[in-house]
Amino acid sequence: MAVNTVAIALVHHPVVNKIGEIIGSAVTNLDLHDIARVSRTYGLSKYYITTPYEDQKKLVQEILDHWQTGHGSTHNPARKEALSIVAVRHSIDEVIAELEKQHGSKPLLIATTAKTTSKTLGYEAVQEKIREKTPILMLFGTAHGLSQEVIDRVDHVLPPITGGTDYNHLPVRAAAAIIIDRLLGREYGHC
Amino acid sequence: MAVNTVAIALVHHPVVNKIGEIIGSAVTNLDLHDIARVSRTYGLSKYYITTPYEDQKKLVQEILDHWQTGHGSTHNPARKEALSIVAVRHSIDEVIAELEKQHGSKPLLIATTAKTTSKTLGYEAVQEKIREKTPILMLFGTAHGLSQEVIDRVDHVLPPITGGTDYNHLPVRAAAAIIIDRLLGREYGHC
Repeated sequence: MAVNTVAIALVHHPVVNKIGEIIGSAVTNLDLHDIARVSRTYGLSKYYITTPYEDQKKLVQEILDHWQTGHGSTHNPARKEALSIVAVRHSIDEVIAELEKQHGSKPLLIATTAKTTSKTLGYEAVQEKIREKTPILMLFGTAHGLSQEVIDRVDHVLPPITGGTDYNHLPVRAAAAIIIDRLLGREYGHC
Repeated sequence: MAVNTVAIALVHHPVVNKIGEIIGSAVTNLDLHDIARVSRTYGLSKYYITTPYEDQKKLVQEILDHWQTGHGSTHNPARKEALSIVAVRHSIDEVIAELEKQHGSKPLLIATTAKTTSKTLGYEAVQEKIREKTPILMLFGTAHGLSQEVIDRVDHVLPPITGGTDYNHLPVRAAAAIIIDRLLGREYGHC
């Protein structure tokens, strides 16, 4: 089913709140569904939800079970298929270890932020790495974004999304859809 | 605030259900927020919600009022700003009439569907029309998409979004984000 070596993780800890404090955010049902449907459409290998909170892990697993084996699986087979690539994990490190085991080498860690840094790598360069089948783990932050400690440890950061205005408050669901399309959308494969 | 002549409408009637019957769908709070934030980020002139149902119009107006003048406006000014470009209207015709009055000519009607038709126009051609400041109204369908009567009356249809798999069940929120980025994202202005 996966047609590329890209996995993504929606990070719920450590992220920052409005005033930059490190927090853990709550998982939302919609982030699961919307980003799973985009991930499956673009052939990603896996969509990880990372949260260290046991109650949150249990909640995610219950939602996944409903659509995988419960009533939802017969009611909406397309949704079953989208959610089949979702998995909940304790931390980014657990996801990295899992992908390393699978691919034989650590995945390239790529984050998305609103700032340009010395680690910024353009979309075309990342497309090239995808074509070379480099294992990649893309990190998306919930709340007000990934904490600095996460940004510090990634290999690359994608350029911020700009829409030609000074307003930039995209939902993480929209940012994920746009970035996945920029990297994997067929129409832009040759840009 | 608007930096281009593109408006969008999220259509709740006439749309089709799973088996192709014409229905009216319910407005969801999240479609309002997510698509408003994307629209404002990319400088669209207006984000219309069209529904012929009085109770639905009232609901949308209550949500907008909460964020425009109620508690939400002081709690989250960024959300206030995003929702300031949202308006609820009875029908696509009402929106067309409003835009015609504003621009002095009817807007170019562009729809998005999963099928390629004789009216299909590529992203670059639409980008060119945006650069020429042609008034454009982009229509997005809720439920299982716009009804055939809507497709029949539009001027153009955008090519379907493909992600390199045979799976294509994007949420309308994701489809709208991807299409707006393809048309107006700075990084792809020269593609």
